[in-house]
Amino acid sequence: MKIKNDLFLRALKGETVERPPVWMMRQAGRYLPEFMAIKEKYDFFTRCRTPELASEITVQPIRRYGMDAAILFSDILVIPQAMQIEVQMKPDFGPYLPNPIRSQIDVDQVLVPDVNEELNYVMQAITATKEKLQDEIPLIGFAGSPWTILCYCVQGQGSKTFDKAKEFCFTQPAAAHNLLQKITDTTISYLKAKVKAGVNAVQVFDSWGGMLSPNDYKEYSWYYIQQIIDALKNETQVIVFGKGCWFALGDMAKSGAAALGVDWTCSAQNARTLTGGKITLQGNFDPARLLSPPDVIKKMVTEMIDEFGKDKYIVNLGHGILPNVPLENAKAFIDAVKEYSS
Amino acid sequence: MKIKNDLFLRALKGETVERPPVWMMRQAGRYLPEFMAIKEKYDFFTRCRTPELASEITVQPIRRYGMDAAILFSDILVIPQAMQIEVQMKPDFGPYLPNPIRSQIDVDQVLVPDVNEELNYVMQAITATKEKLQDEIPLIGFAGSPWTILCYCVQGQGSKTFDKAKEFCFTQPAAAHNLLQKITDTTISYLKAKVKAGVNAVQVFDSWGGMLSPNDYKEYSWYYIQQIIDALKNETQVIVFGKGCWFALGDMAKSGAAALGVDWTCSAQNARTLTGGKITLQGNFDPARLLSPPDVIKKMVTEMIDEFGKDKYIVNLGHGILPNVPLENAKAFIDAVKEYSS
Repeated sequence: MKIKNDLFLRALKGETVERPPVWMMRQAGRYLPEFMAIKEKYDFFTRCRTPELASEITVQPIRRYGMDAAILFSDILVIPQAMQIEVQMKPDFGPYLPNPIRSQIDVDQVLVPDVNEELNYVMQAITATKEKLQDEIPLIGFAGSPWTILCYCVQGQGSKTFDKAKEFCFTQPAAAHNLLQKITDTTISYLKAKVKAGVNAVQVFDSWGGMLSPNDYKEYSWYYIQQIIDALKNETQVIVFGKGCWFALGDMAKSGAAALGVDWTCSAQNARTLTGGKITLQGNFDPARLLSPPDVIKKMVTEMIDEFGKDKYIVNLGHGILPNVPLENAKAFIDAVKEYSS
Repeated sequence: MKIKNDLFLRALKGETVERPPVWMMRQAGRYLPEFMAIKEKYDFFTRCRTPELASEITVQPIRRYGMDAAILFSDILVIPQAMQIEVQMKPDFGPYLPNPIRSQIDVDQVLVPDVNEELNYVMQAITATKEKLQDEIPLIGFAGSPWTILCYCVQGQGSKTFDKAKEFCFTQPAAAHNLLQKITDTTISYLKAKVKAGVNAVQVFDSWGGMLSPNDYKEYSWYYIQQIIDALKNETQVIVFGKGCWFALGDMAKSGAAALGVDWTCSAQNARTLTGGKITLQGNFDPARLLSPPDVIKKMVTEMIDEFGKDKYIVNLGHGILPNVPLENAKAFIDAVKEYSS
C-alpha cells in the first residue's frame, strides 16, 4: 500500500525532499491531555496490551499535530516480559523487575519465546493502528537494544550507573553474552513479526549504550545491534538511536542501518563528520529546549535544519519529550519544520 | 614547601615523568571500611565541617594505597550552603534543597559570602590535612562548576534530566545568569582562599555539563568555568573535569587550564585529537570496570596508559569510585600504575 505522505520513507532512503520529515520520540506521551485521560483509566501494561488503546494512543499526537510518522505505542520491556521475566511498571518509580538476573542459572531459565504467541497483542495493535492511519503516514515499530534490555533485566530497575548490570557483564561475561544472545534472537523475530504485521520502518533504542566505554560498547552492545540490522535490513529500514553513543557513530554508519539517531550533545557538524556525511541522521533537539518560548523554539528548529541540511535528515528530539512541555511548544516544534524553506 | 613526590605536579606542567601519577575521584569514600567507620558516627556535614574528621578521611586512602595526590574531603554543595541556600544531605536520597531557586526574587536573596568566614572550616581542614601529609604528596582542592551548582539549587535534588534547572535557564535566562555569576564570584574567592590555605592544585567538577547542548554549554557552563580559570591560573594549576563534555574539549584545551579530565566514553585517541595533543589529560577508567577481577583491571590500566602515553597524563577514573568496589580491586588499579614501565 502506497503511503500518501512518504517524506519520512524518502528521507530514510536519502532521497531529495521538499522539507525534512518530523516526528518526536515519545510523541504519544504524558504531555498530551488526551493521553492522560486514557492513562487515568488504564494501567501501563493494559494500555500496551489492548490493541484499541495502543492504537488510539499512537494516533493521538498525529491528529493534534500532523507529524510525518507515527510510532506504535508500546514499551521496550514487553520483550523481557515475553521471555518470562516479570516486569512491573510502578507509578512514580518506573520499571521494576522483582527477580533480576544475576547468574548463569538465571539466564538458563530465560526463554526465547514464540513472539507471534507471546506478543500477538502488539501485532494486533499494529493492525488496528494501520486501520486508523489509512496509509496517510508511515508507522514505526521499535525495540530496545539487547544491552539496554539487559540493563533492566539485571539491575532490576532504572539506575544512574547501571552498576549491577555492568558488574554482571564484567564478572560473568559468558553468562552476559548468553543473555544478550537470547534477547537478540527474540528481538529479531519480534521486529520481523512487526514488519509482517505492517510497520514501515523499525527503530532500535539503545538508551543506555552511552554508559559503556567504546570497547565495552562494541562487545556488549554493538555486536548485537549489528545482528539485528543484518537480519532486518532486507525487509525494512532500520534506524538505530544510541543515546550518548557519539563515539560509535563511525561504526554505525557502516552497518547497513538506514538512519542514525543522535542526541543534542552531538552537534550537526560533529554528527555529519563522525558518520562520513552519507547516512540519514535523525535528531537532535534537546527535549528541555521545548520548555523555551515558542518563538525561540521555532528559531532554533530552523537553525537546526540549516545545520543538518534538509536532505538525509529527519527532524526529531534528542531523547523523549518531557511530560511538562506545553502543548503550544510541541506545536511550535512541528510547525517550524512544516514551514521550513531553505 | 617542596613536595617530596611531585609526579602529579610535574604531570600537570607537562614534564616528562618516570610513570604517570595516579589518584581516584572519590578515593576517600564508601568503599573504604575506615571511611564507613567514621560515617557511622558522624553525619555528612559534620564530617565536612570538622577539620579533624575531614583531614582524617582525606588521608585514609593515601595510607592504604599510596596515591600520588590527595583530594580534600568536602562537597561541592558547601558553596550554596555558604550562600545561605539550605542544603540537606538525606541518607539513601542524596542532596535535598527544601527552598529551590525558581525566580529572580529568589536569586536576589542569594548572598555572595565572605568565604573566609562562612567556609573557614574548609581552610582549617586544609591546614590539618597538610600537617598529616607532611609534604609527602600534593593536596588537591575542588569546587563544582557554577552550572552544576545551579542544577542542584534550582532542581532542589539530583535528577536524570535536571529539567527544572534547564527550564529556569531557558525561560528566565537573565535570572539564571545572575545566579551563575553569584556562584562564580563565590567559587573564585573560595578557590583562592583554598590555595592560600595550602592546596597545590584545584579541580573544577562539571558533573552535569554533559546535559547541555554544545551551544547551551558555552552559554550556561563554560563561560563561567573560563572566569574561574582566568582568576586562578596565575596562582595554581587548574584541572577541569566535565562529565560527558567531550564536545567542549577543544575550547577547554585553549582555556589556560593545566589539565582536563575525560570520562570513559571518550577514548584516549579521541581525547588527544579533540584537545590537540598538547594538554595534560586525566582519566578515564570506567568506575564499573573496577568490578572486574584484579588481573583484568591491571591489564586494562596498562593498556590505558599505553593509549594515553605516560607523559601529559594523570591516571584516574572517569568518574567517582563506586561504593561496592572490593578493596583488592582498588589496590590493583593503583598498583598497576606504580608497576608501569613503558
